[in-house]
This record gives sequence, C-alpha cells and structure tokens, in this order.
Amino acid sequence: MTDLVITNAIVVTSDGAGTIIKGGGVAVAKGRITHVASSADLAPIASRAARVIDGTGHILMPGIVNTHCHAADSLFRGLVENLPLEPWLQTVWKAEAAILNPATSRLGSVLGFAELLLSGVTSVMDMFWYPFETVAAARQVGLRVATGGIFFDPAGVTALPIEKRVLEAERFFEEFGKAEDVFACAMPHGTYTVSPDNLKAAWAVSHKCGGLFCTHCAETRAEQADIVSRYGRTVVRHLDHLGCLDQRTVLAHCVHLDDEELDIIARTGAHVAHNPMSNMKLASGFARVPDMLERGINVSLGTDGPLSGNDLDMWMALRLAATIHKGYTGRADLISTRQVFDMLTVNGAKALGAADRIGSLEVGKLADMVLVDVKRPHAVPMFDPMTHLVYSTNKSDVRHVFLGGEQVVRDGALTRMSLDETLAEVSAMAPRIAATIA
Amino acid sequence: MTDLVITNAIVVTSDGAGTIIKGGGVAVAKGRITHVASSADLAPIASRAARVIDGTGHILMPGIVNTHCHAADSLFRGLVENLPLEPWLQTVWKAEAAILNPATSRLGSVLGFAELLLSGVTSVMDMFWYPFETVAAARQVGLRVATGGIFFDPAGVTALPIEKRVLEAERFFEEFGKAEDVFACAMPHGTYTVSPDNLKAAWAVSHKCGGLFCTHCAETRAEQADIVSRYGRTVVRHLDHLGCLDQRTVLAHCVHLDDEELDIIARTGAHVAHNPMSNMKLASGFARVPDMLERGINVSLGTDGPLSGNDLDMWMALRLAATIHKGYTGRADLISTRQVFDMLTVNGAKALGAADRIGSLEVGKLADMVLVDVKRPHAVPMFDPMTHLVYSTNKSDVRHVFLGGEQVVRDGALTRMSLDETLAEVSAMAPRIAATIA
Repeated sequence: MTDLVITNAIVVTSDGAGTIIKGGGVAVAKGRITHVASSADLAPIASRAARVIDGTGHILMPGIVNTHCHAADSLFRGLVENLPLEPWLQTVWKAEAAILNPATSRLGSVLGFAELLLSGVTSVMDMFWYPFETVAAARQVGLRVATGGIFFDPAGVTALPIEKRVLEAERFFEEFGKAEDVFACAMPHGTYTVSPDNLKAAWAVSHKCGGLFCTHCAETRAEQADIVSRYGRTVVRHLDHLGCLDQRTVLAHCVHLDDEELDIIARTGAHVAHNPMSNMKLASGFARVPDMLERGINVSLGTDGPLSGNDLDMWMALRLAATIHKGYTGRADLISTRQVFDMLTVNGAKALGAADRIGSLEVGKLADMVLVDVKRPHAVPMFDPMTHLVYSTNKSDVRHVFLGGEQVVRDGALTRMSLDETLAEVSAMAPRIAATIA
Repeated sequence: MTDLVITNAIVVTSDGAGTIIKGGGVAVAKGRITHVASSADLAPIASRAARVIDGTGHILMPGIVNTHCHAADSLFRGLVENLPLEPWLQTVWKAEAAILNPATSRLGSVLGFAELLLSGVTSVMDMFWYPFETVAAARQVGLRVATGGIFFDPAGVTALPIEKRVLEAERFFEEFGKAEDVFACAMPHGTYTVSPDNLKAAWAVSHKCGGLFCTHCAETRAEQADIVSRYGRTVVRHLDHLGCLDQRTVLAHCVHLDDEELDIIARTGAHVAHNPMSNMKLASGFARVPDMLERGINVSLGTDGPLSGNDLDMWMALRLAATIHKGYTGRADLISTRQVFDMLTVNGAKALGAADRIGSLEVGKLADMVLVDVKRPHAVPMFDPMTHLVYSTNKSDVRHVFLGGEQVVRDGALTRMSLDETLAEVSAMAPRIAATIA
C-alpha cells in the first residue's frame, strides 16, 4: 500500500549523482521512499495511493539537516548584541541561569524548532541544558533531533557534578538510543568549559552507547589561545591527543585552524558544522571551508543559536556558505552550487551518522521532504533548480514539509500543533527575560 | 481631510533621533505624513479619517531605499554563475545584447521592481539600457525610481554614439526632472567603460539639469589596475581629477579603496552604495564600510542586479552589512544596529538627494511606509524593534506597503497589477534566454 505520492514537481534529489527530475516526484510507504521517478512512471502507483499531491510549481527536495543549534535560546534572541563571543557568553549564561528550567527550556525549544521546521529543517543537532525536554519539544513540533547529555564544568544552568552528567547521558542513550527520530549524542560544551577528564568521560559514554560526540571547536582566536595556554596544544590537537576525534565526532565552528589541524580532522574523519552567520555576527571570523573541502572533510551547515543570528535560517546559512568564501578569497569559482547544497542536506546526514536514512531523496530512505514554492517573482526565470535553491530561495518559499511521510507543515503552518499559545507565552515572558541582564 | 491613519503599530521612524513609538502610527493627507504619534494622540484624527488601519502585530517603518540595482536583469538571474566580475560581465552582456529591446527591458524591470516592492522597497536607483522603459515599469508596479540616460562607450545593448546618449539623457531630464516619483540621473556605467570626455559629458548633463550622477566605482582589483594603467590614477582619483565627484554623485561598490581615496570621497561628499551580496558572490571583496562611516561618508545599501544575487533582497543586504564587517575585522562592536538601519532608509534618501521627502517617517515627508508582520516565530520575543528588523526580519515579513499613502502592496500582493502574466511571459522566454550563452 502506497501512502503518499507527490507528482509534477521538480525533484532535486541530492543523491550522489546530483540527479534532478523535471516533472516527477516520489512514492512513500510506511514512512519511507519507495520510488523516485518521473510523473509518468509514478502514475500507476498514484492511482492506487492513499494520497496524491500535485507538486506543480514546486521543487521537491530532501528535508534540511541543521547540524548546530541551541534552539531554546530563542527565548533570548536579540537580548545581547554587538559583543564578541567571550563577554557575550558570560551575559548569555547569566540570562539563561535566571530563566531556564525544564519547562522554559522546552518552551524555547518548541519556538526554535517550529521556526526550523517551517523553513524545511527536518533534522537538527541541538545542544541544550535539558536534553529530555529537547526531545519532547522536537516530537511536539515534528522533527528529528540529535541531542543528548550536556557536559559543562562551570555551574551553568543545571549545575550537575560530572557523575550526574554521566548518568544523565547514559539514561538518555537508554531511552532514545534506538529511536528513529532521535540521534543520541554526548555533548561536551567545549574544551574551554570541560576538563580533559570530563571530555574523556563524555567520549566514553557516547562510544559505549554507539552515539555521537559533539562539541564546540576553535570558534575564536581567544579560545585557541586559552587552550594553548592551559594544555600546550591548540583545540583540535588537544581533542586529538585525548582521543576524542573520529567519524562520530561533530565539531561546531572550526573557524581558526592551521593546516595541520585541518589534516588531523581529515585523518580522523570528524565532521565540521559550519555556522557562517554566527561566526560573522560574533566577529569570530571565516572558517576555512574551501581548504576543508579540498581535504575531503565533511562540512555541513548550522544556524547556531538564535542569540547569534538572530533567527534560525538555514537558507541564510546556505547563501552565506555559497558566497562568503568567494568574498574573502577573491575566487568566484570556489565552492560549487552542488557542493554547498550537499552541505545543506547529505553532508548533514553524514555528520549525524544517518546518511543511510536521511539527507537525500532515494529509495529506502525516510520520507523527510520539502516542497518549495517556485511561483514567486524571485524564482522566475529558473535555469537551474539547484542554483535557484542556493542563490534565490527564501525560507518563506517552503510551503509543505514531510517527516517520514507525515505532513508536518501544510501551507506554511505546523500541523501537529498551533503556535499561538507558544508565541503568547514567550511574549509575556519577555519583560522578565530582559530584566535578567538589566 | 485625513486620508489614512495607521494605529497600534510599533513605529520605527528612522528619524534623526532614532525615535521608536511602541503603540502608535501615522496620519496621512494628500500623500504626505501629517502626524507621527501614539495611538492615543491619533485617535481623534482617526475618527475623521477616510481609512484607518489597525497595525497591531506590525512594525511600521519607512519604505526601503535601494541605491544600486539593475532590475531588468531579472530576466537572466542564475544564468551566469561562479565567475569573477570581468568574464562574468562579458557573458552577461552577450546574453543582454541578444535578448533586450525596449519591450523585454520593461518586462524584466517589472519583474525586478515587483520583487523589490513586495519586500518593502519604495525607491530604487536603477541603471539600465532603456531608462524611459524603466520609469514606465516602476509606475506600473508602484515605486519611485532614480534612473536616467546611460553612458557606455562599447556598443552594449543600445549601441548609441555619445551625441545620442547626451540627447537621450537631456530628454529624460526634460520629461522626468520634476516628477515626484522619479529622481533623474545621468548614469555613466563606469570609468572602464566610459572615456574621460564622455564621463564629463554625462556630468555636464546631470549638473545642467540639477540631477544625480551615478556610476560603478572600484568594484574589483582588476578594475583599479585597469584604470591605473590607462590613466595613471586609481578610479576615485580619476573621477576626482575629472571633477566628477560631489554631493550629487552616487558611487556603487567602492570595494577597493585606499585611505586617500576614502578621504577624497569624504571631502567631496559623494555617496557610496554598498552591495555586500554582489561583492561576495562575484568575489570582488568587502568594502571598507567601517572606515567610510568613521570618515562621515554617507553609505547606503543596494542589491545590485539579480544576476549577482540572485534575488533582490534588501533585507539580505541589511543583514550582511550588519555582520560581514564584524566578520573580517574581528570586531563585534563595529557598525551599530542604528547605523545599519539608517543605511537601509535615510542614507539611501540622502544618496538620492531626497532626504527632505523620503527615508523616514516624519511630518511633511511622503508617506512611503511598510508594515512588517511581527507575529512570526522568528519575531518572538522582541526586546528591541530595530534589532529585530536588522537581525531577524525576512523579506516575506513585509505585508503591506504604501507609496505616498497609496497602498501598493496588500497582504503580500501588488495592488496596481497582477504578476501572473509577467511571470508566465518570462518563464516562456527562459529557453530562448538560456540559448544565448549555450
């Protein structure tokens, strides 16, 4: 039994061959893609399908994978401005400590995840204080989430000793390690906030449980200098020395790396989550993405949190990744349209260790899919659909989103929940949030 | 008689004092703003007004001024990719020469202007081959346009000798010099495409007629080297030497300038139109905007054409102007929210020599206004409305646009015309356009 057929769309598959079908679609059964084909070839399947959607005037593409986010920080968007990372973090942490508990954390996560899903993000790697609440929020909104126990030596919001953090991380793996909508991780915040022993403890949990290990890495020059002064090694060398880099490692940012550090990342197979907007806004700089790609490092995209954005816009991340590296190198041919679109989709799936399940429209994969309206003025004319997606598409062009075949966004609105209450609740909290840093 | 009152909005005036009114609006009579006030103060006026709009859940702000565009190049968006400016221009000009005539030029202008107006742009400086068609398109869509006779020594699309270009420019001033919706210019393309004599001819026309003089300036290193080799001076020095810089001069790009060139621009009072997206995509580089601001140079924003974008998104230009300069300087405090918002509005009005009429919500000015929806997930919470506009707003948040009090965009759609035919016509032309460079 076919549950869903989408036809008459321009299909941008993001598969290994870069296949594009002009006038085609997919068939979906039990949440997975059974066919990717032309409309003509889909016609007999459509005639027996439970639901058929006419994709005329739309691009059908895989759900976007955001590989670095702190969605619940939506509660604080625009609160702390025009500061570099280090003083900015001190102010942010003060506000977080005053406001966050499991309930407000979930509220913020719902708000952030809603914004992401409405723009076509179906999987997000999210680092936040209450990982169980993060999962609850993701399920409420309707997307997959890579998250897990956070490791953080300063008190932070939750102020847990390392033993309890390990226990929480293990408990998270027990509960979600096998879930189809959760990619379980251990999430040490960074080398400047987690001791070598505790980094190793996080690593041990993630690898005992077969999950991912994700941390901030070399975001600023100050961070690099700090780690060198403490441990005599730069951040990547420090992580490598501790044995914390392999193919299940996701490193957020990686802005300030020397050639040898890039080689280390390439050798270990660790993944880089590139966050161009955050890195510009916080004046961190430009990650050496062209050099990473040249070395075969898997680079995916992230929004970072909405405190350094101030929105969660993967289309902005895409456009920036496609243009800023041309800007500072002076080379217009750097990073092809295809390369940068892969960063938005399949490379993110690889980072999450889930390239067999998500990241492209291919038979057997989960039906995480987006229909992008191309009847807008900025979509006409369209000579190449992928060029359109990279250089002209706006997040509001996303009309419909499917998660495992379930329609989770219809005509630009969530289907699992209404956001009205969430927006009202957050707006009502705003004065209290503002007062935390006044 | 008051024609229109908008109340209950968050009013971001962009006036000299940065006034923001939370819970207020404007009154409009005969196309001009008669009051900017709180909703309470507007109530008696509203009771006698022909039309009252409840702006609850919206920011009311001035219409955006885009100071560098080639809107009709919408016909070619996404056609020529991943090339630096010089080879890119050769390919673009080939496609333009094969396709453009007055009718197709107008068609492309309508498409581009529609995209601009829908995003809240109410005035645009647009350089294109058929300036009379450009005005016709702007009037059809519903925005003000700064344009005029183009000067270009190579054949280009129109292949006119200089005498005819001067005549056309003069005729343009005669017809539109006094129009309220046209800011008449002479538009020499650049120092590398217009001889010193012809630059002076363009200058003479613009100054005889009391208009603006607008040209591309120092966009790439190659251009600077070219002009130095031809004339022994860099682009700005060359223009200064020819006597072509004053307060009615608008210089697009200004990416590669040394300190003395910045000083020359500051001394002469010429304006800079900053086009961050185009400069990144074409690998031109980053303009020294912080250094310009420090010298008191008036910097406004532009999209450049949709061939180097590939859309016409002033909100993207705004976000980039607010972040890229932090990115490459490493200084998070560079360019304040207020400074960059001024670039979007009042600074553009100054560049057009029209700061007395547009660019801010102030009594006596033309009622060019935008209502931005702030009920979206990325707009909540909102601690500071200007921060929201700069760092979270998306072009699709623009719901209603007014030009001299006339509603030209209602609920995200044009009111003067339907775009359906335009989109169909351009789509139908696409194969023929693609064939020009095949």
